[in-house]
Amino acid sequence: MAKSEHIPAPAVRRLSLYLRQLEAFAAVDRPTVSSRDLGEALGLTDAQIRKDLAYFGHFGRPGVGYRVTELIQRVRRILGTDKKSDVLLVGVGNLGRALLSYRGFAKQGFELIAAFDKDRAIVGKTINPGSIRVRPMSEMPKLVRAKSVRLGILSVPAPAAQDVADRMVKAGVRCILNFAPTTLHVHPGIAVSSVDLAVHLEQLSFQLMGSTT
Amino acid sequence: MAKSEHIPAPAVRRLSLYLRQLEAFAAVDRPTVSSRDLGEALGLTDAQIRKDLAYFGHFGRPGVGYRVTELIQRVRRILGTDKKSDVLLVGVGNLGRALLSYRGFAKQGFELIAAFDKDRAIVGKTINPGSIRVRPMSEMPKLVRAKSVRLGILSVPAPAAQDVADRMVKAGVRCILNFAPTTLHVHPGIAVSSVDLAVHLEQLSFQLMGSTT
Repeated sequence: MAKSEHIPAPAVRRLSLYLRQLEAFAAVDRPTVSSRDLGEALGLTDAQIRKDLAYFGHFGRPGVGYRVTELIQRVRRILGTDKKSDVLLVGVGNLGRALLSYRGFAKQGFELIAAFDKDRAIVGKTINPGSIRVRPMSEMPKLVRAKSVRLGILSVPAPAAQDVADRMVKAGVRCILNFAPTTLHVHPGIAVSSVDLAVHLEQLSFQLMGSTT
Repeated sequence: MAKSEHIPAPAVRRLSLYLRQLEAFAAVDRPTVSSRDLGEALGLTDAQIRKDLAYFGHFGRPGVGYRVTELIQRVRRILGTDKKSDVLLVGVGNLGRALLSYRGFAKQGFELIAAFDKDRAIVGKTINPGSIRVRPMSEMPKLVRAKSVRLGILSVPAPAAQDVADRMVKAGVRCILNFAPTTLHVHPGIAVSSVDLAVHLEQLSFQLMGSTT
């Protein structure tokens, strides 16, 4: 396994893109694909794709290209999603509910196994379709230990986010996917990826300004 | 207004980060802030912040720093979020419902004014808290024209996404925030920002691999 510190973050991000496109090719039973085909589907050059993949080893054969199912397996192994990963979620508001129902996670090997909330009105209720029962916050540390959960989704309101993140990290969570529109401060060994949905609209808004002035 | 084509995309993305942090400072009535304070809060160097802001004009004064409320207004003007923007949403499943309830959009000037779905079981229903009535797809072009809507959120399943995106663009939508886990192909003048939630978990998973091997 290549060391992640030598690999540029954009190359790792593009691996996810490649995986999605490869899965789309696999869905229509395409056996092989060239870096040019992959590039055309994604709006990237074939050189970029070959360069990115070269960080992780040798793939494909000249004139033949990549075997789709083989490359899918290898990319999943690189990303660590070839095995199922347990994920917990804290904050079962509207967004939390949507995330518990989001099928995209399971498709990529992420299994939401537990949901927590501090609101007594929600605790004990079962959220479909995953049939996950909402647990009280006090049960989180025990579950993290019992199941060795390393990935957590944070979907509480912004004012509560830092406190909840601290509790997740203290319990043993190593990586947090943060939906609260706030900056989390965590120890260097803890990975945080923040999804601020309004940021995406702001960025689109900026592009709209550029195209109209 | 600076031309957007000369400004690196990461600098524009960081503007959104700066805005969030400035709003946090404003919420606790802080009158001024230095680039060093802003950098410390966000894990960036003060040089990076000064460099980014310099793309857009002259800000702050030596020894005083930036006036928080003034910088917020100027950043919003740059991003085009100083005025309210109407946004429509297509696809009122679980995720669509969560997005219709997500308060972060309105806070940044984005008002969800209409929601569309092809499912007759949903059309006509009202989604709280925005009290938005779900309309049939056939009403989309008329609404886009009547209200000059330029921003659209796409939260339909992946297989339907390209067709729906084409219909949004044909109706007059210029920017699409895409939640369907698929690559959309649109004309060069149309801006697409895709949010694939599983990608974020994959990236965290990769970091987890790196920290454990």
